[in-house]
Amino acid sequence: MSQFWSPFVKDLVPYVPGEQPKMTRLVKLNTNENPYGPSPKAIAAMQAQLNDDLRLYPDPNSDRLKQAIADYYGVQTSQVFVGNGSDEVLAHAFHGLFQHGKPLLYPDITYSFYPVYCGLYGIESGPVALDENFRIRVEDYARENGGIIFPNPNAPTGCLLPLAAIEQLLQQNTETVVLVDEAYIDFGGETAIALVNKYPNLLVTQTLSKSRSLAGLRVGLAVGHPDLIEALERVKNSFNSYPLDRMAIAGAAAAFEDRDYFNETCQKVISDREWVAAELTALGFDVLPSAANFVFARHAQKDAATIAAALREQGIIVRHFKTERIAQFLRITIGTPEQNSELIDALKAL
Amino acid sequence: MSQFWSPFVKDLVPYVPGEQPKMTRLVKLNTNENPYGPSPKAIAAMQAQLNDDLRLYPDPNSDRLKQAIADYYGVQTSQVFVGNGSDEVLAHAFHGLFQHGKPLLYPDITYSFYPVYCGLYGIESGPVALDENFRIRVEDYARENGGIIFPNPNAPTGCLLPLAAIEQLLQQNTETVVLVDEAYIDFGGETAIALVNKYPNLLVTQTLSKSRSLAGLRVGLAVGHPDLIEALERVKNSFNSYPLDRMAIAGAAAAFEDRDYFNETCQKVISDREWVAAELTALGFDVLPSAANFVFARHAQKDAATIAAALREQGIIVRHFKTERIAQFLRITIGTPEQNSELIDALKAL
Repeated sequence: MSQFWSPFVKDLVPYVPGEQPKMTRLVKLNTNENPYGPSPKAIAAMQAQLNDDLRLYPDPNSDRLKQAIADYYGVQTSQVFVGNGSDEVLAHAFHGLFQHGKPLLYPDITYSFYPVYCGLYGIESGPVALDENFRIRVEDYARENGGIIFPNPNAPTGCLLPLAAIEQLLQQNTETVVLVDEAYIDFGGETAIALVNKYPNLLVTQTLSKSRSLAGLRVGLAVGHPDLIEALERVKNSFNSYPLDRMAIAGAAAAFEDRDYFNETCQKVISDREWVAAELTALGFDVLPSAANFVFARHAQKDAATIAAALREQGIIVRHFKTERIAQFLRITIGTPEQNSELIDALKAL
Repeated sequence: MSQFWSPFVKDLVPYVPGEQPKMTRLVKLNTNENPYGPSPKAIAAMQAQLNDDLRLYPDPNSDRLKQAIADYYGVQTSQVFVGNGSDEVLAHAFHGLFQHGKPLLYPDITYSFYPVYCGLYGIESGPVALDENFRIRVEDYARENGGIIFPNPNAPTGCLLPLAAIEQLLQQNTETVVLVDEAYIDFGGETAIALVNKYPNLLVTQTLSKSRSLAGLRVGLAVGHPDLIEALERVKNSFNSYPLDRMAIAGAAAAFEDRDYFNETCQKVISDREWVAAELTALGFDVLPSAANFVFARHAQKDAATIAAALREQGIIVRHFKTERIAQFLRITIGTPEQNSELIDALKAL
């Protein structure tokens, strides 16, 4: 604490990302990265940017990328916003759309960055308990709020809310923004972007860090009514004119254009997830049904912290949240078939 | 305006960056980019990141880059902060260090993003008039404030405040942060980083977009007392864990390590600036003394808007601010010798 800090800074409780160890040869199943690399076409597109033109600013509006996303989803570019990772997109959405002096509703077990953004922008937190099966119950969100946000599928549970339930939520909540954070949607869900033309208060965010294998590039996006996008653009243009660099714009656009590679790698992750879930179940784990590239599982007898520590001894890193209600769960990213087998073998040997 | 916007959004007056035209074959002297490309070693370092590891998150702390900057300036890594362009670094500094309910002091003629940040974070603006020679007068800043910020050299004037004057300012202002924004310092000034160990309220920001020819990569930095850096880290970690992508960390570090290329290209820009300034003076322009990679000049008779329009007809773009006190000035970036000659020839023909 220093006299020079703005007063809110001392109360900030920053987000703690999953560990990014610098050692190599780890089986790294702790931050939900894709086991497969990005599309070779995305790499080639970035490669083409590595020249003297890097002396020039990028396109401040990232038009090429917005067009690729608009084409992919069949929306207008005025309905698309892009940012430096979906965390930046979420930050601008909290700032520009959720400051209404009423509690922001989100699941009590969810992406732990949401309360951090509330702290950053002075937004009241309104956590809503998941039910006993760790499911979102739409009825519980029928109360006064300054906005609603949840990931779909939820993290770290992996549980999917069907599109019909999201539509029910939108019908019961028309006066504030409903933000559906679809970081993991491509691994088994149906995107709510299908609903943006019907509900002017729906904003959908996505990231290229998971299903498009570009966590190292930092690109995220939002799709919604042009009025919502305008709020994000106004905040963005009052914060940083050029959030996406030249490689990010080109690489992300190419990743959206290469549908075959995307479909193929997503399918591999999905089928490997089902294998991992079945193996874990056979080993005595209770595995929540997952529509993401990770599973959330607890063992009937064994302590989660003990399992995580034992795995770590063998160079396998999984994520353990020491949080109420989920302290006995482990979140395990789906790796390559070899990594998944190493994990299962290690668990069998415990 | 939409009912869904946070209330402050409607009053935002976003920053308007210089035009980034998509046509090629322009003589683009409007956004102060370096006429020379980045260090070939920086390009090679980015190249080495273009592989399947892009599926993995980058180092959230950008340690390699912080170390390169610390080594370059002879400071500790705990005194270094990095961000997605210096605009992001400035945004976090406004948010984390300038919210004290008192006016933030900055020159009336300066980087026009400062009042935008004030609008974004609810900070009162306290513009202080430059003197009649467009100089900062340190005595004018001896009044109650929530912080002080100015570019050195100032933009768009190019005028340099000597280090002794900055030290005088720091001696008269010990209770709030003094932020020296050194976007252009490498083109003829002496960095105030030399003073950070002496003044705990001094924060110095820099960018890699100008002297290091990496506008297209988006990297900026701040150097100051660890307490100031901690405020920035707390805000950053409550906003976006991974603001710098893998290419940005590697390319920026390599740019700092390649001192020879940096010194050589800076020297070329400086000597070309002196040539441009002399030619403009010979053509009847009043050219402010510049320590930047641009000159700020007005013609004794000819109207600035008319000159800018005539240059544009010939594919030469310069920046004209339609702002009080400087409406008759043009800000002209120093280009390659060929571009500078084209500019001077075009002006002679007017």
